[in-house]
Amino acid sequence: MGLIRSWVESANGDTDFPLNNLPCGVFSTGDQEPRCGVAIGDFILDLTALEEEGILGFAEGPLFDVPFWNEVMEAGPAVWADLRARITALLAEGAAARPQVEPHLVPRAGAVLHMPFLVAEYTDFYAGRNHAFNVGTMFRGAENALPPNWLHIPIGYNGRASSVVVSGTEVRRPWGQVKSPEHELPAFQPSRRFDIELEMGAVVGQASRHGYPVTVAEADAMIFGYVLLNDWSARDIQAWEYQPLGPFQAKATATTISPWVVMKAALEPFRTSTPAREKVLLPYLAEPTPMLYDIALEVGLTPEGGEETVIARTNYAEMYYSAAQQLAHHTTSGCAMNVGDLLGSGTISGPEKDSRGSLLELSWGGKEPFAIKGGSRSFIEDNDTLVLRGAARGDGYRIGFGDCAGKVIPALANPYERN
Amino acid sequence: MGLIRSWVESANGDTDFPLNNLPCGVFSTGDQEPRCGVAIGDFILDLTALEEEGILGFAEGPLFDVPFWNEVMEAGPAVWADLRARITALLAEGAAARPQVEPHLVPRAGAVLHMPFLVAEYTDFYAGRNHAFNVGTMFRGAENALPPNWLHIPIGYNGRASSVVVSGTEVRRPWGQVKSPEHELPAFQPSRRFDIELEMGAVVGQASRHGYPVTVAEADAMIFGYVLLNDWSARDIQAWEYQPLGPFQAKATATTISPWVVMKAALEPFRTSTPAREKVLLPYLAEPTPMLYDIALEVGLTPEGGEETVIARTNYAEMYYSAAQQLAHHTTSGCAMNVGDLLGSGTISGPEKDSRGSLLELSWGGKEPFAIKGGSRSFIEDNDTLVLRGAARGDGYRIGFGDCAGKVIPALANPYERN
Repeated sequence: MGLIRSWVESANGDTDFPLNNLPCGVFSTGDQEPRCGVAIGDFILDLTALEEEGILGFAEGPLFDVPFWNEVMEAGPAVWADLRARITALLAEGAAARPQVEPHLVPRAGAVLHMPFLVAEYTDFYAGRNHAFNVGTMFRGAENALPPNWLHIPIGYNGRASSVVVSGTEVRRPWGQVKSPEHELPAFQPSRRFDIELEMGAVVGQASRHGYPVTVAEADAMIFGYVLLNDWSARDIQAWEYQPLGPFQAKATATTISPWVVMKAALEPFRTSTPAREKVLLPYLAEPTPMLYDIALEVGLTPEGGEETVIARTNYAEMYYSAAQQLAHHTTSGCAMNVGDLLGSGTISGPEKDSRGSLLELSWGGKEPFAIKGGSRSFIEDNDTLVLRGAARGDGYRIGFGDCAGKVIPALANPYERN
Repeated sequence: MGLIRSWVESANGDTDFPLNNLPCGVFSTGDQEPRCGVAIGDFILDLTALEEEGILGFAEGPLFDVPFWNEVMEAGPAVWADLRARITALLAEGAAARPQVEPHLVPRAGAVLHMPFLVAEYTDFYAGRNHAFNVGTMFRGAENALPPNWLHIPIGYNGRASSVVVSGTEVRRPWGQVKSPEHELPAFQPSRRFDIELEMGAVVGQASRHGYPVTVAEADAMIFGYVLLNDWSARDIQAWEYQPLGPFQAKATATTISPWVVMKAALEPFRTSTPAREKVLLPYLAEPTPMLYDIALEVGLTPEGGEETVIARTNYAEMYYSAAQQLAHHTTSGCAMNVGDLLGSGTISGPEKDSRGSLLELSWGGKEPFAIKGGSRSFIEDNDTLVLRGAARGDGYRIGFGDCAGKVIPALANPYERN
């Protein structure tokens, strides 16, 4: 399938947001209340306004009377498909509705983007084989790099939904309890090894029933869409706290997501299979059809006042487990999943040195600082801006997510002082 | 302080619910919608009705127009104190308001109890020294029982809010991925080592600001109240999945809480200090005043059609870290806490064999089955009912939480079959 042409000219050229995409966001301009929209070329189509004026033509609803997409998700896959079809018809080249629709196009350049959905709960996985191997090698040596369960289970842990923020939100370097090998006692200080994790996030759009696991196929059907996701990580805090119950405060400072949720339907042409299995999976984890996606990813680092260096390039297809497999595993114990649950894929590192999705791996634990324009880095320095970008590339178009960016600002001088 | 006498006679005798307590719950009778109430002797005082009729006399509000206590929590500590004072005045011996209030007493015996609040996020700690030592000894030997960070950090991990259920909810034995040492490959099967964890839960009643840690004193002030909490745990699933990122599906089947949240004010006379520190804590974790509570706890196990055996007796004062210390630590990275967050204390085991808060410890990993009336147990068997009880005992009264009970029903024959 090629580009679907739109009467919005900027959607037909070099853009993340052709008519094939229609990603879901929440935006505001000036003093306006935040409202729901889809990106199209250089514009955002104001769905809250279209719905109010009856242009969308839904019988049910309202779906866009609140500034988040959870109500649409809850409405279910038939509504998701219907909504895409209606918006596509309104924006397609030659659409008769253009005069009614055009007044509701808002330039993206002047809009503020907000969290696109309310995060119910957030789970982060560890399902990239190269990342797990790299981190394991640093901590335990190459021969014991992968834990024995890793090729059998999509390993994950629960994260903190209250820390999920939208692209553009500044991220303050955290304080935390750390202990370096040369000291006998721990200290409480700002993190010195603050890092990113390049991930994709799957947004759960349908709930599962408490007590009832879902199959991988059912899990895939429950997913509404995908975002870029940066799971900020304080490696020094993590190293001291994570045994025996896993990362906690190291991962709770912030998790940044892209402002646009790309619906699963827009990614359909880019489905691809997980890599060959090194161990046969238990049947409950088998994928009936391809459930990963071919999405090129990159990370840019820009120092304050400096120029950006792309420090890593990789692809979502590097994952060992798909989001559908992760979600199915998440329900095995009977755990109920809800609309708005967010699943981080785990860090997506490729096999090459410049395809690693964290500074921990890029600098090999800080031992091999890597070059950036005008300097070098082991971990993030104050006022660095980190940007994740991603795009699935089709015939004459691409499906993008918008930047997933965050600037790291200096730690509080005294975290307990109130101004 | 002694018993505060009430005109509700059953509140002056042998009860968990004297006028000193006034714990917060949500109840319904017959076809009635769930509503907010406080327990008083053999009755529940219907606060939704009192508010509707203007008997509570609050200027602000409504606080009880929704069937959960989150709005009261959000209103803040001054409202919590005012509410207790108003209800106490209405129910005290000789109260002039008795004729207006008495019609709104509902017998507890006929009421159905619901979740008392909406759980925002759920965090479980590992802050009982005896439990950590026992489990560590079983897994790593007595000399390496406590991880090196344990005496410095209240170790915790994020749990799953969607799994929290109210007392009385049946708990279905989960399926999960397990691997026994004698097998080369893992299997997917019902858990054979299903267990309880005897804990207290702290209910966060005030939010903290993203990016700003709170002190232990501020954390204590943010806590609305406490519940009994049973963190059901599948030990065989846990053993295989928990490295390196902590427990996940092993803890996601269910977490049962008592139907009554006891407000912090009711526990004030029972404050006690955490035990002597074996290592000096970092200043951010120091407790300015006593923040643990002297609450006697017990666990009862009743087989189907059989008689109850009390299998463990212990005390909340056995904790090494208080909930206020845990909450303060939880915010160190800047993690935002929200109204309705629930913090599990960690398993509360005493030093004696019969004071251990899990079957894992009571049966020493299944190697030493313990006696119950008419049989023995290593782990929970199908149709066993487990009950946690707790009470702080004052001069002539006690402050209880009501039973925190759950019956374990057999696993699904085929977890993917839909009826």
